[in-house]
Amino acid sequence: MAKIVLKSANLPGEYSKIEQKDILIDGGRFAKIGGNLTPQDIENAEVVDCSSFAVLPAFYNGHTHAAMTLLRGYADDMELNRWLNQYIWPFEAKLTGDDIEIGSRLAVLEMIKSGTVFFADMYWHREKTMKVVEEMGIRASIGVTFAEALMSPDAIEKNFEFLAAHTGESERVHLVVMPHSIYTVGEPLFRRCAEVARAEKFLLHTHLSETKKEVEDCQKQFGCSPVALLDRAGALDENLIAAHCVHFSENDLRAFAAAGATAVLNPCSNLKLSSGIPPVAALLAGGAKLALGTDGASSNNSLDMHAEMKLAALLAKAQNTAETLPAQEALYMATRNVAQAYGLSGAGEVREGALADCLLVRLDNERMTPCHDIVSNWVYAADSGCIDSVICNGRFVMRGRHVDGEEEILKDAQACAKRLAGR
Amino acid sequence: MAKIVLKSANLPGEYSKIEQKDILIDGGRFAKIGGNLTPQDIENAEVVDCSSFAVLPAFYNGHTHAAMTLLRGYADDMELNRWLNQYIWPFEAKLTGDDIEIGSRLAVLEMIKSGTVFFADMYWHREKTMKVVEEMGIRASIGVTFAEALMSPDAIEKNFEFLAAHTGESERVHLVVMPHSIYTVGEPLFRRCAEVARAEKFLLHTHLSETKKEVEDCQKQFGCSPVALLDRAGALDENLIAAHCVHFSENDLRAFAAAGATAVLNPCSNLKLSSGIPPVAALLAGGAKLALGTDGASSNNSLDMHAEMKLAALLAKAQNTAETLPAQEALYMATRNVAQAYGLSGAGEVREGALADCLLVRLDNERMTPCHDIVSNWVYAADSGCIDSVICNGRFVMRGRHVDGEEEILKDAQACAKRLAGR
Repeated sequence: MAKIVLKSANLPGEYSKIEQKDILIDGGRFAKIGGNLTPQDIENAEVVDCSSFAVLPAFYNGHTHAAMTLLRGYADDMELNRWLNQYIWPFEAKLTGDDIEIGSRLAVLEMIKSGTVFFADMYWHREKTMKVVEEMGIRASIGVTFAEALMSPDAIEKNFEFLAAHTGESERVHLVVMPHSIYTVGEPLFRRCAEVARAEKFLLHTHLSETKKEVEDCQKQFGCSPVALLDRAGALDENLIAAHCVHFSENDLRAFAAAGATAVLNPCSNLKLSSGIPPVAALLAGGAKLALGTDGASSNNSLDMHAEMKLAALLAKAQNTAETLPAQEALYMATRNVAQAYGLSGAGEVREGALADCLLVRLDNERMTPCHDIVSNWVYAADSGCIDSVICNGRFVMRGRHVDGEEEILKDAQACAKRLAGR
Repeated sequence: MAKIVLKSANLPGEYSKIEQKDILIDGGRFAKIGGNLTPQDIENAEVVDCSSFAVLPAFYNGHTHAAMTLLRGYADDMELNRWLNQYIWPFEAKLTGDDIEIGSRLAVLEMIKSGTVFFADMYWHREKTMKVVEEMGIRASIGVTFAEALMSPDAIEKNFEFLAAHTGESERVHLVVMPHSIYTVGEPLFRRCAEVARAEKFLLHTHLSETKKEVEDCQKQFGCSPVALLDRAGALDENLIAAHCVHFSENDLRAFAAAGATAVLNPCSNLKLSSGIPPVAALLAGGAKLALGTDGASSNNSLDMHAEMKLAALLAKAQNTAETLPAQEALYMATRNVAQAYGLSGAGEVREGALADCLLVRLDNERMTPCHDIVSNWVYAADSGCIDSVICNGRFVMRGRHVDGEEEILKDAQACAKRLAGR
């Protein structure tokens, strides 16, 4: 693994001041920050002049369906059931493994270009997505997805075998047990998923309380809320990472926070599908662990964590006061909180010893000017176009806004989507 | 004025299809779209290959305070009164005309880079901002701003003289009568502003019902809502363009819509300052004319109309149904609706005869791929980084993401803000 020195990197310091420091990246980690680098440190290192860059944590995307980039803009502005039944599901039914590989590649490209180096993916043909992640140099927690309505008992058993063997796991790619939701996975299977996860040290990820209908149907069918149902199934604990969490009762929130579970909010998707406005301020006040994700590109319609971060901060303030979820906290929700939830210990921050994932953000960009406060500018004023380069695991995955092979990826995705829409 | 041919430009057609057409720009207008351009059309024209660009309407920013870019990130995450009294107003008190020129130039640069070719500006030292707009090639409606607490009677009279003489107006720069708000301008002066505007064919622009406090104070002091107070002052008519409009009663909405006034929403600023969530869906349902603006960079913190457009669409859906404010309608709110409100007749659309303002948006960008629907991709998936070039009044003001003089503008703004913060 190559050494990199980020020379004169601008870092956010105390009292909004900028501090220029040299950063040594070695062995995939931030080996030294500041102080004097020795000749030995610099030996054989690539030295990158960062005097006009802020070096900031890269984004981690806590919930998505990567290959759904192929459905971007295929159906919008319609009610959820019509959207799913008439457009999304029939399109998805046509997707082959090869299509999913192409869609995942477009997703990873889009994520890298908008500063994201990790995603948690719930989809199908996981081996294809895993391959793309390995090739393109970022990280992922890939779902072994369970949905009883769509799977044979045999396929469910194969999922558990896949997990037991830790198939395809690597330094950058991990598996996560992903029962899709309480309306597609029954209580016994949910319980088994939770037990396997605990026993074999996997995390458990599911959709939770996304729509009012989900909560109402659950009340009717099971006489309790979706959160209470997870509790009944033995799935409500620190191991749980739940996406959406839009419709929590006060009791739900209390139980969820007390269990130490993490909520991954997807505000953009929730608003666009009219599922509701995630109660960011209430979840914060209730002490729940909070992180962010983009959801799939068919309901967002981008995979831009920066946009999600700003929207979460804005909603929290509108729901409570302007002091709520200040810039630094919003940034944590999109970076280290996601990393912590997915067990990437010491990731999501630019500090000595942490995994060497970061962004080189242009300070000589109009949106980062003037620079009274680097973090405020980044969270509230910038957009993905301010990102010059992206480093993941101590290696450049984007340089000067270029990602290797991007032209091919776009061409393949465009052709694939056209083929699918016409099929 | 030079001729430009946009060759093989991709335009949104019927049923989400893309149509490739040639566009002739001549005399500052879209002279011909599609059909066969004659040799005479092309003679002496600059021909630009647009086969990988969508040609889309440019943005018009219906409400901002341009020079406040100097305060970007200077104070965030705090309650409105503390924000204004302890940070914003003391900083603004130090601003000279030269500072405002520098801040306005940064604002115009930022607007061009994010695809905006017009802004309505409410601020001070208007002649400085007018100069910047003339130089940088875009359009503006510049406020002759009234605020009794901050102005001598003499300064108020000078404002009316400035208006009577149409000082500094030009093809691209117009004046607008801008009484700041009902809490800084009394009823008699508001009445006079409205009368002068009507008599001398100016538009009238003000802040309206931005915060709950404004509405409550108005009820206490005048026994009616701010909208009713404007009605009483003879200012509630088609001539009125009101910014914010967050806290309307049902009666306010009915009166406002019936009067034919235009509401310029600034959702990002309203959320960030915790002023409230603008009732986009209710305003739409009530038949009010709706447009969008960014507000100033100290409360947003960018001047990015694309972000405002997406946020407005998302909020409308969350407030009502996913069908509410579809992509095309959201795009209108950020383009032709603003142009219409500000009397730029035939602007804000790419059609024959319209003012030649448009964006060249890269289709070979990951966020515009695949292209099932060009308008959906633009509104929901893109961000400002997808814009390659900007044309205003038949002239390129940005090409290949470069704006003439941008390096100087950034340097000057950075130095100026530093000086001011230290003063």
